[in-house]
Amino acid sequence: MTLAEAQRRDAADPLRHFRTAFALPDSIVYLDGNSLGALPNRTAARLADTAAREWGDGLVRSWNSNDWIAAPRRVGDKIAPLIGAQPGEVIVADSTSVNTYKLLAAALAARPGRTVIVSEPGNFPTDVYMAQGLKLLRPDIELRLVPRADIDSALDDNVAVLLLTHVHYKTAEMFDMVGLTAKAHTAGAFTLWDLSHSAGAVCVDLNAANADLAVGCGYKYLNGGPGAPAFLFVAERHQAALHSPLTGWMGHAAPFGFADAYAPAPGIDRFLCGTPPILGLAALEEGVDLMRGADFDALLTKSRALSSYFIDLVETRCPLPLVSPRDAAERGSHISLRHEHGYPVMQALIERGIIGDFRAPDLLRFGFAPLYNSFEDVWHAVGALTDILDVGAWREDRYAVRTRVT
Amino acid sequence: MTLAEAQRRDAADPLRHFRTAFALPDSIVYLDGNSLGALPNRTAARLADTAAREWGDGLVRSWNSNDWIAAPRRVGDKIAPLIGAQPGEVIVADSTSVNTYKLLAAALAARPGRTVIVSEPGNFPTDVYMAQGLKLLRPDIELRLVPRADIDSALDDNVAVLLLTHVHYKTAEMFDMVGLTAKAHTAGAFTLWDLSHSAGAVCVDLNAANADLAVGCGYKYLNGGPGAPAFLFVAERHQAALHSPLTGWMGHAAPFGFADAYAPAPGIDRFLCGTPPILGLAALEEGVDLMRGADFDALLTKSRALSSYFIDLVETRCPLPLVSPRDAAERGSHISLRHEHGYPVMQALIERGIIGDFRAPDLLRFGFAPLYNSFEDVWHAVGALTDILDVGAWREDRYAVRTRVT
Repeated sequence: MTLAEAQRRDAADPLRHFRTAFALPDSIVYLDGNSLGALPNRTAARLADTAAREWGDGLVRSWNSNDWIAAPRRVGDKIAPLIGAQPGEVIVADSTSVNTYKLLAAALAARPGRTVIVSEPGNFPTDVYMAQGLKLLRPDIELRLVPRADIDSALDDNVAVLLLTHVHYKTAEMFDMVGLTAKAHTAGAFTLWDLSHSAGAVCVDLNAANADLAVGCGYKYLNGGPGAPAFLFVAERHQAALHSPLTGWMGHAAPFGFADAYAPAPGIDRFLCGTPPILGLAALEEGVDLMRGADFDALLTKSRALSSYFIDLVETRCPLPLVSPRDAAERGSHISLRHEHGYPVMQALIERGIIGDFRAPDLLRFGFAPLYNSFEDVWHAVGALTDILDVGAWREDRYAVRTRVT
Repeated sequence: MTLAEAQRRDAADPLRHFRTAFALPDSIVYLDGNSLGALPNRTAARLADTAAREWGDGLVRSWNSNDWIAAPRRVGDKIAPLIGAQPGEVIVADSTSVNTYKLLAAALAARPGRTVIVSEPGNFPTDVYMAQGLKLLRPDIELRLVPRADIDSALDDNVAVLLLTHVHYKTAEMFDMVGLTAKAHTAGAFTLWDLSHSAGAVCVDLNAANADLAVGCGYKYLNGGPGAPAFLFVAERHQAALHSPLTGWMGHAAPFGFADAYAPAPGIDRFLCGTPPILGLAALEEGVDLMRGADFDALLTKSRALSSYFIDLVETRCPLPLVSPRDAAERGSHISLRHEHGYPVMQALIERGIIGDFRAPDLLRFGFAPLYNSFEDVWHAVGALTDILDVGAWREDRYAVRTRVT
């Protein structure tokens, strides 16, 4: 377990050239791409062009001449193969939160008489919050949070939708999408998968799993930029029967007909709402295009290799309790370790240029983005963590100050 | 009515220096800022900095170090004085459509037993569409569309909210916000004002009108860029009692506590939903900052002067029927004219570098943005329109092809 070995692995990495496509400072090791992905070099140029040429010179004409109007569908179609979807099944719009609401409401309306949403405690908060928000208009709706071992038995004939995050944001545990989708279908329920910690990092095959609905985040492994627009998936077989509650003009069959009566667009477009965010879409498209230029099997293989290497090094050099599954096939592309004083430990790491994040109450979280992280990154991160723990550097007063909001 | 007179007016315009703050091509006369505002020069630099320094170098740390997390509130507080609101009453989030849904649902939930939303036929479509979307979860909700002359009598004790666009997107007719708000309150209903065609162009004083709720667009007169995030207003007196249905994590009292149970933030923050769109917020902030640098009374005065000058020239040189109010006090900052063949007429104008837009079935629409439009712009626009009508240039075949979606 030497630096030279890490460097040998990097030299053999078929994706090693992708690192230079990102504007990552040399002085840091960035292991937080599961929270906010890095900036692709081309994105800066794309934003400059979108601003100066498309908006500045083209002005309102660019809805046509630069095909802004088609961007949500175009970028959705580019994301589709990364998650096992077909063209016309994915669209980019709004935020993951808003898209979750759309699809939960659509599923509930399509299962009249059923009033339960099943999810698990500790799911990413915004998912369960959006489910709770439905109660403002539908107080009869019940959010049933059950531990993952009990999900099967919770799927009774009052369940409209099973809402799960495919890869857990804290532990990186990955659900069996195929098995749980089948169980939900047996119970007559829809599945809604949150792919925020999956898309672009682990194998997702929505159609092979016969999945119904999904949402996901543009700013993590897809490198779409801070607060990037999100995506949603509706299986083609459901599109005609499902209706968004957020019936904005862009989801209308004829948005520029300006009729008073809402009529949903055919297909996935009905899940659009307001005017598409063109700057955000442009940045996201660059991130997705960059990923599409990589061999996807190589990318998934490297994701597992990086996180497994991290675990191996940690177990050898600074054996903190591993919160994530030991088996790479059962987890996503980040690793969480437990430390009672996780917050100051992470602050000490960040000061040394190793950027991961802390999740309350006691988790150190490290994300491995196969497009730009290297084995040497992993080696340096574990080295710094080992040093900090060995000498108790995290006990310095300044690390205890809670300044970080994310 | 000579070019020299237009130039004399421009020379006397206290806002004339603002035009050079925008990246407007010299070859065009842009009269569509009511649809998509022009690009401020500073915005291109701001986007480059947000991408390279804040995202590229700062990475996830920028939520703290560059205060991304505070952007929705900070930009909202900057918009507030433009619409007669106090700090803490306005927040930037999502789209106008999504924000409309939030506030309609909040108002309905706060008026249990009342099931009616009153609006007018021909209101901007997304407003009435979002109201219709509420029926997916609440089929008992009724959208009552009544002509503006009959709104008063439609406000019975089953009305929860009166939803109106302050300045009509086609005709530019402006509602009496003070009077209608008082009438809605007498009936026990909330008012929800869509300020998309008002903010930054006409006098809006929400608190003087005792208004309850408002939404508005970032990409028109505020020059926030294509699909810019939108804003919403909730009067301080209502904030504790109103609840968003879109209970995303950014609206939580402790977003990074990651609890399973939703608890709304105190104040306006509870109307946030997902992760804020940082690129869009950065661009919008530049647009708003630029406008805040202008004398607002001068801006409102110039808005009226430009549109009045346009009407005077049209009546003299090419008297098409005026659809907008003749009295500047009764209208917004755009003017619509009627022409049976409006579509090809507008295409012919655009080909000559005069950019307005067409609204079906027969309206030519021209917006006057006081920050960057000049009296000479108006003079040239009416000159081109006169020429096109005089020689029937719009009859050329190529203008009939419907290629524009906006």
